[in-house]
Amino acid sequence: MTVAEVRCWAPDGMPEVAAGDDLAALVIAAAGALEAGDVVVVSSKVVSKAEGRQVVAEDREQAITDETVRVVAVREQPGGGLTRIVENRLGIVGAAAGVDASNVAPGTVLLLPVDPDASAARLRTALIAASGVPVGVLVTDTLGRPWRRGQTDIAIGAAGIAVVDDLRGEPDANGRPMGVTVVAVADEIASLADLVKGKATNRPVAVVRGMDHYVLDADGPGARSVVRLGNEDMFRQGSSEA
Amino acid sequence: MTVAEVRCWAPDGMPEVAAGDDLAALVIAAAGALEAGDVVVVSSKVVSKAEGRQVVAEDREQAITDETVRVVAVREQPGGGLTRIVENRLGIVGAAAGVDASNVAPGTVLLLPVDPDASAARLRTALIAASGVPVGVLVTDTLGRPWRRGQTDIAIGAAGIAVVDDLRGEPDANGRPMGVTVVAVADEIASLADLVKGKATNRPVAVVRGMDHYVLDADGPGARSVVRLGNEDMFRQGSSEA
Repeated sequence: MTVAEVRCWAPDGMPEVAAGDDLAALVIAAAGALEAGDVVVVSSKVVSKAEGRQVVAEDREQAITDETVRVVAVREQPGGGLTRIVENRLGIVGAAAGVDASNVAPGTVLLLPVDPDASAARLRTALIAASGVPVGVLVTDTLGRPWRRGQTDIAIGAAGIAVVDDLRGEPDANGRPMGVTVVAVADEIASLADLVKGKATNRPVAVVRGMDHYVLDADGPGARSVVRLGNEDMFRQGSSEA
Repeated sequence: MTVAEVRCWAPDGMPEVAAGDDLAALVIAAAGALEAGDVVVVSSKVVSKAEGRQVVAEDREQAITDETVRVVAVREQPGGGLTRIVENRLGIVGAAAGVDASNVAPGTVLLLPVDPDASAARLRTALIAASGVPVGVLVTDTLGRPWRRGQTDIAIGAAGIAVVDDLRGEPDANGRPMGVTVVAVADEIASLADLVKGKATNRPVAVVRGMDHYVLDADGPGARSVVRLGNEDMFRQGSSEA
């Protein structure tokens, strides 16, 4: 009996990250020995911290406005106040443009990395230099869903890994061509890594082993390519929902 | 250095499932020896097949209508024709109400299981009886996302496993109470399992080891509880998107 298997673990030992830190060196130290085809998953929070993306909490609403490309919905919160569901400058639709108040220093909030695909590419280069083997890198964030409770992690940056597995036209197990199947590989790996990294632990890094068939020998398309363009977005085409 | 770790594998050896088959017996045979706290993830497709949910392909459009509670959006397909994005009777918003044409016998399409939480509960009972240890069960389906390319697997049925991990009010790594964090555990485990089950293989079952802290000693709330109620759904409250 053959089995397809994946393993994922989140090592302890990442220190608190501060602006200007050499994130690659910290991730390399935390990740431990890597094998060819491993995928290293890093929470965007520590990427942002290394990039100095903290702003003072009083500037939170203005920061959300600055990071916003368009407002998708505004929701009243049970305790009062409004949550803006927006498309941010990375093309990601979510609450508060990714401006984050958890796991940051008191009195501050954290913006998303400037260019998470570029951050992933830099990390990949450093990890390959340190380990001597080809690996992929994902930078992840936590995102709500419109019709389901809770959040899942998604990939907002990617390097050296396929972000989708486009099976359209490939035969299914019955030999019939699959019509619509595009597996959101990078987002599914991000979700997997979230299960071990956790939210309240100092484990912002995970290593995924067993997904080497998705690891590329170049930076590849990046996570930005997962964003639906305007004419692919069913809700811009008209919805009965509003 | 301690590590949080998860493993997931998808055994070969599931036969083609037909209406009336004893699905529990087939899953037990495929899953192999289970340990306490394992989560067994089963694609809804084989649950539907065992339940005899096939209909002839000519009835597809009517089947979608029958499974639909409300139409959320209608999209023109590049090759002509319309895709209906709908809320189905399970509360899941997706294309074609989950009516599926891949990996089914020619000339047929497949409806979702009648009650996936009940299917999961029956499987859980059978798996516990066979293995003698507490395990969780998820029944999964593949779902698109409005603003991102590709699909991820989600849990449409659950038994013996927490479907969300509500961390609101818990302290983060800096001791600040988390305001909004609810981890969509069951959906993230479903995505993990999709990475090893694949779409074109005969591997509709996966075993997840390392998530025992989410395994319950009763059926628990089920996947239906993940669906946002009407007044939680930001798009029913008014959106600028349409």
